[in-house]
Amino acid sequence: MKAISIGLLGLGTVGSGVVKIIENHQDKLMHQIGCPVQVKKVLVQNIHKEREVAVNQSLLTTSAEEIIDDPDIDIIIEVMGGLEGTKELLLKALKQKKHVVTANKDLMAVHGSELLTTASLNSCDLFYEASVAGGIPILRSLVDGLASDRITKMMGIVNGTTNYILTKMSKQGSAYDDVLAEAQRLGYAESDPTADVDGLDAARKMAILSTLGFSMKIDLDDVKVKGIRSVSEDDLQYGKQLGYTMKLIGIAQREGEKVEVSVQPTLLADAHPLAAVNDEYNAVYVYGEAVGETMFYGPGAGSLPTATAIVSDLVGVMKNMRLGVNGKSAISPQYEKKLKQPEEIYSKYFLRIHVKDEVGVFANITSVFAEHGVSFEKILQLPLKEAEEAEIVLVTHRSSLEDFEQILNKLRDLSAINEIKSSYRVEGGGR
Amino acid sequence: MKAISIGLLGLGTVGSGVVKIIENHQDKLMHQIGCPVQVKKVLVQNIHKEREVAVNQSLLTTSAEEIIDDPDIDIIIEVMGGLEGTKELLLKALKQKKHVVTANKDLMAVHGSELLTTASLNSCDLFYEASVAGGIPILRSLVDGLASDRITKMMGIVNGTTNYILTKMSKQGSAYDDVLAEAQRLGYAESDPTADVDGLDAARKMAILSTLGFSMKIDLDDVKVKGIRSVSEDDLQYGKQLGYTMKLIGIAQREGEKVEVSVQPTLLADAHPLAAVNDEYNAVYVYGEAVGETMFYGPGAGSLPTATAIVSDLVGVMKNMRLGVNGKSAISPQYEKKLKQPEEIYSKYFLRIHVKDEVGVFANITSVFAEHGVSFEKILQLPLKEAEEAEIVLVTHRSSLEDFEQILNKLRDLSAINEIKSSYRVEGGGR
Repeated sequence: MKAISIGLLGLGTVGSGVVKIIENHQDKLMHQIGCPVQVKKVLVQNIHKEREVAVNQSLLTTSAEEIIDDPDIDIIIEVMGGLEGTKELLLKALKQKKHVVTANKDLMAVHGSELLTTASLNSCDLFYEASVAGGIPILRSLVDGLASDRITKMMGIVNGTTNYILTKMSKQGSAYDDVLAEAQRLGYAESDPTADVDGLDAARKMAILSTLGFSMKIDLDDVKVKGIRSVSEDDLQYGKQLGYTMKLIGIAQREGEKVEVSVQPTLLADAHPLAAVNDEYNAVYVYGEAVGETMFYGPGAGSLPTATAIVSDLVGVMKNMRLGVNGKSAISPQYEKKLKQPEEIYSKYFLRIHVKDEVGVFANITSVFAEHGVSFEKILQLPLKEAEEAEIVLVTHRSSLEDFEQILNKLRDLSAINEIKSSYRVEGGGR
Repeated sequence: MKAISIGLLGLGTVGSGVVKIIENHQDKLMHQIGCPVQVKKVLVQNIHKEREVAVNQSLLTTSAEEIIDDPDIDIIIEVMGGLEGTKELLLKALKQKKHVVTANKDLMAVHGSELLTTASLNSCDLFYEASVAGGIPILRSLVDGLASDRITKMMGIVNGTTNYILTKMSKQGSAYDDVLAEAQRLGYAESDPTADVDGLDAARKMAILSTLGFSMKIDLDDVKVKGIRSVSEDDLQYGKQLGYTMKLIGIAQREGEKVEVSVQPTLLADAHPLAAVNDEYNAVYVYGEAVGETMFYGPGAGSLPTATAIVSDLVGVMKNMRLGVNGKSAISPQYEKKLKQPEEIYSKYFLRIHVKDEVGVFANITSVFAEHGVSFEKILQLPLKEAEEAEIVLVTHRSSLEDFEQILNKLRDLSAINEIKSSYRVEGGGR
């Protein structure tokens, strides 16, 4: 029986994992698909580099064209990263009727719909489970498992680096900079951590998730992003005192026909299932009208989890090939994009301010909130070391983002307020 | 375009949910499948009973044959429960080339392989996602998402009633009987709670899960079962003090070619992701060699979650029908069943005993453990109100089940020991 041939673009840790899994699971794959599968060519930058995984050197090439143009290769697995060049390569592959499996979240967040359309036009599969939360089969669950439900909310801890940092800050009471340095030493954070700590990586994943979950083309630019650089130990400790855990949360929410998608440090009620997701783990919480609350938890990165997701996609492609039904599973967005405006985005907020310790200050503050019809759920007031200053920590009831921003502006103008130290969205724990 | 016709067996809360979802999601279903879908006939016990959901009375019938023999009906959805009679009905349906979707865990745990074989021989789909943890797409994830991994451990909180009871006992410090009565009043427990509290319901689900996850035909009788009736508040409180949460856990574990499957009240280290799964929620924790730790969380029961799982399966069947590929997804068990013997089943154990408060007692106890090479991880000793008695709480390091049972027998014979109050398996938190 003719083997299915794979062209692998990239042989880093993930690519090596893919090679290993395919080799170690030949029997199981054969059992599932009914024919053998082989890696036929591998694109690398340097053929003679020493590698952890033993790959027959005759398979290696430095020419992408040699792989894309090989008529025997049925499926391209892309694990080399990159944006424009990689897009062109994959478009070419799809036009040559090669199926594509990719782990490239940057690419899918930015060019996903163009690639998916091209795949569909060419009756090719384009699968990308590994692009979001490597070890969690979340895309598959959204497409299949919750197919008959209407998803109204997704919340994701979809970046392992920031979750690791926030967990350590919370448990050890350490400062952001110290924990980041430790994370870099241990390999949990890149030497340039920008994409992680500024929330961009999470935003890409939320764009992919919300596009799929809401069947609406959400672009990366539609995702409002705030990172964790300015999160302080004080915020974490006050949060804890009030029953919250700080997480970098991607929120995608739908009400009626309108959606909001954001990534921001968020104080989660301790009882929320996401609040217990610690260290470098990822999780995606999905609320469906019929199913209610569900959550998918697992490793968000790592070469083997990501490689596992890729091979699962690969199995999907190969099953479709054997059945002759490729290119039918991509669902094009069904709804027109309608984004919520700031006056339509509601949530509770945590606010920490330093005020002059004098009579009437609190009345001034509450009257600003009252003007906007926003009341408080929790209040902490504490004297500070500086004799004339006090610290006030508030959690509001639900407010529109517009109201809350106007409140912040008015508070900044109050002479009794020395500084607005921080503010965060609050999720969970009732209205 | 010809509609796909469904015969529904049963119109209780789940059946009504299925009817509702199909009606409310006609557009979405049409978009996914490319043709309309209709419920053509519904089997009920009483045609004239008043019902929550508005179903055209002309669809109702009290004759199962009228549905099974209807050549226009393509798919049977079985939500009426029952064992032998239901099996015969579904076998007949499959032989008449009707696909089957069922939520019947009793049936699948006992007759699953016979039904699946018949389905496969008749090129029919038989899907049963709703039979395990209604709102969690766990079977799909095992089959597809983790297809290329080797699953070595599954741990499930797969019974909502017992999780509700244990959560309340733990949080309120209430007694088992009181919480059970409350759960019955609130509808979280049946008036006859036997199948839930004695672990049988969980055992059925573990038989289904382990058969699929290990690709090995695990029968219900292979699952060792212990329920929660004898769990006391004291056990929960001591557990808490030592850093554990009590859960009714189904464990399916594989080492080499051998497996063990059990359901028992278990003390879980607080840091384990399952320890945070509270109230009536279910979760399945899966450890795969490549992917590492993953967990799927959601409602385990409830009419809408279960109905959602059924409709997802229905979408799967209908997609396969449109593609002409039914009956190919059932994977027959690949490995011969090999069960671990008690000397091969290792875990940590919690033990609570009442002893005479006299010199040398503790030395007697430790020497019994030492004879079997079992040492302690944690020890608590407390005086009791009865002047001459003390309570000892131990957590052992790993021991074989055989050793531990022999130790228990020897302890029972020690004159210094008044009573062995309780013992539990301990999971998580290192070796």
